[in-house]
Amino acid sequence: MIERPRGTRDLLPEDMYTRNKFEEILRRTCNNFGYQEILTPTYEHTKLFTERSGPSIVEDLYAFKDKSERDIALRPEFTASVMRMYAQGLRERPKPLKLFYFGPTFRYERPQAGRYREFWQFGTELIGPDTPRADAENIALAHFCMLNSGLKEFTLKISHLGILETFLKEKNVPPDDVREIYHAIDKETLEELDNRYDFLDELGTLLTSDMDTMKDLIENTNSVDHLQCVLNTLELYGMNEKNYKVDLSTVRGLDYYKGVVFEIDAEKLGAERQICGGGDYCLGDIFGIDISSKGFAIGFDRTLLALEKEKTDIGIWRPTCYLIPIGEDALSYTYELLATLRTEDITADIELMERSIGKALAYADRMNFKYSILIGETELKEGSFTVKNMKDGEQITLKKDELIEEMNKHESK
Amino acid sequence: MIERPRGTRDLLPEDMYTRNKFEEILRRTCNNFGYQEILTPTYEHTKLFTERSGPSIVEDLYAFKDKSERDIALRPEFTASVMRMYAQGLRERPKPLKLFYFGPTFRYERPQAGRYREFWQFGTELIGPDTPRADAENIALAHFCMLNSGLKEFTLKISHLGILETFLKEKNVPPDDVREIYHAIDKETLEELDNRYDFLDELGTLLTSDMDTMKDLIENTNSVDHLQCVLNTLELYGMNEKNYKVDLSTVRGLDYYKGVVFEIDAEKLGAERQICGGGDYCLGDIFGIDISSKGFAIGFDRTLLALEKEKTDIGIWRPTCYLIPIGEDALSYTYELLATLRTEDITADIELMERSIGKALAYADRMNFKYSILIGETELKEGSFTVKNMKDGEQITLKKDELIEEMNKHESK
Repeated sequence: MIERPRGTRDLLPEDMYTRNKFEEILRRTCNNFGYQEILTPTYEHTKLFTERSGPSIVEDLYAFKDKSERDIALRPEFTASVMRMYAQGLRERPKPLKLFYFGPTFRYERPQAGRYREFWQFGTELIGPDTPRADAENIALAHFCMLNSGLKEFTLKISHLGILETFLKEKNVPPDDVREIYHAIDKETLEELDNRYDFLDELGTLLTSDMDTMKDLIENTNSVDHLQCVLNTLELYGMNEKNYKVDLSTVRGLDYYKGVVFEIDAEKLGAERQICGGGDYCLGDIFGIDISSKGFAIGFDRTLLALEKEKTDIGIWRPTCYLIPIGEDALSYTYELLATLRTEDITADIELMERSIGKALAYADRMNFKYSILIGETELKEGSFTVKNMKDGEQITLKKDELIEEMNKHESK
Repeated sequence: MIERPRGTRDLLPEDMYTRNKFEEILRRTCNNFGYQEILTPTYEHTKLFTERSGPSIVEDLYAFKDKSERDIALRPEFTASVMRMYAQGLRERPKPLKLFYFGPTFRYERPQAGRYREFWQFGTELIGPDTPRADAENIALAHFCMLNSGLKEFTLKISHLGILETFLKEKNVPPDDVREIYHAIDKETLEELDNRYDFLDELGTLLTSDMDTMKDLIENTNSVDHLQCVLNTLELYGMNEKNYKVDLSTVRGLDYYKGVVFEIDAEKLGAERQICGGGDYCLGDIFGIDISSKGFAIGFDRTLLALEKEKTDIGIWRPTCYLIPIGEDALSYTYELLATLRTEDITADIELMERSIGKALAYADRMNFKYSILIGETELKEGSFTVKNMKDGEQITLKKDELIEEMNKHESK
């Protein structure tokens, strides 16, 4: 028996139904904000990912040599590819350039509950404007993606990396130490640095302080002012402290972010609670292009898991009608109805197994059809159709045009 | 400069718009026929593909060793994966099981015009019923996929492999020679076999004969009767000789087909004219499962190329409104409208670059917005909005509810 590769999934019809609905919501929300979809190749030269994120990323990469001994890797995320695509083919486009993408991404790590080697990412880029209003547009889009998906409990944490940076600079921390401190903040191990710096208490205060207190703790308040401006704009989107919290300990794991950053957590997911992350970064650094982009990526699978935990009912597929011809003579009369229904864009299927009525009805029931339509000698003679509601078992007799009208009402588009 | 890998593409916003529309049509057509979507992993154990198609396929496979020295390959097509998925997780489902899939597939070959190393396939499986009516459902779905996509000129060729098989059997051709003759038929090199068989003239006649003549050329007419039954059913779908031709030289390249097979060509594409191929085969052979499936795969990229050659206008994305606030004071009034429009599911974007009115309008024009909405001191004072039609330049002044009503009419959903 040849098995499915380790850490991968087969997506069943009911999985795909839910996933397609969620994808549709995200796509529609992005379009609604003026974003357009793009797509990059499933694999890239490995160098693209190592130049962006450092050679240590290779460990987690699904990397291999192709037949011409080129180093190739299945994409672990999209941003590096979008940067390359921008550098190669989108530079001349008018700004802002608002883009989104969706597709499978890959990482080579030990599979565990909720973590797969092939997983899906949905993400965006807002290329060009480096203004607080652009930051707000970016954060608001992420927020509305979650909201429109039906997710109820999630926490949006917003930060500005410049505030922490200014604080550490004003404390004369050497650049080499900055990264270590960021790391300690991210891993919540600040107290382990205790005997090395005398400002750790003050830093602790900064990390949990409100906007006003921040201004008291640093001299240069440009970053605080910028963040305040973003928050003021978010208010115009109908968002306030009930929808987000300012949390300077949100430092993001990656080096290329610069200004405003944010994360969305679904606490229900425990250790794997982060379902979205993004912010402001220099898009073209490895290509020598100096342009800002603000974007985010949504962990598609994890967010679906969060929706599932909230028992958000995306529903199941319920095709509209199942046609059951009874006897050879009814065949052409049944197919005529089938053709009409399908032409009218009504989902219709026909019994192909020549089963008994009972078995055909049982099949229609298991496949969640809304109606079965029985066509035998009587129907043929009278030019009518017997329509059985599969929910309550009720049967009515209809003429063809009445049937089309009725089924049209029940078709989910 | 790190380039895109050889033989791959970046799909631009306008590409994705067309592709999404086409995908939507195919998905809707399949749903309409009662088919449900599934998805398999992007890569599989290489063995899955070699067991199904023979070791020679490895040459064209995008195959590699993963970090645990497993032989892995990016999928070259979906059917083998669907077979595996069926064997592992779908066997117990009621039949018929009607499935479809869509995703990237990969082959390692010299890239050339219209042939890429990463390309997309859309395909279906109808698992269970081994009846002529099931063959007809399969062929009709392929036909309507093309029709609904807007493609006008294409040729559907239908055959039954059993007819040729019967003929050769009745001529006592040894099984080893059969494959060679199939190959010669496929490559149109039958005359090269001239001195080896005495029935080649007769075979030539069979390949081009109508249904009645076929019956004169073979003793056992079961296959001809089966094919006739399929054609009779196709008539009930509204299809006739204008929509297809019976062509016994359609032998398909692969060994696992058995009964009715078909191909769709778009002649405009020249040598690469085949845009769809499918038929009847034993689904579970390599897994020891004896169940029939009838399916087809559509070359997604080639079909798009055919549509393009016919200048089928899928159109471009035209977002509805671009909001231009004039001066700081107009900001919150503008954002209020933005939020309302988006909540009403109307595509709306806002000027984020603080440009002059002229430049903002030029941007809206280049991005194909239908309307620009100008908001300055006068509008703010009067509680109105100036709406500029980007096509004819006409300007009207509207109150908020009138504006929402008007924009709703122009929103493409």
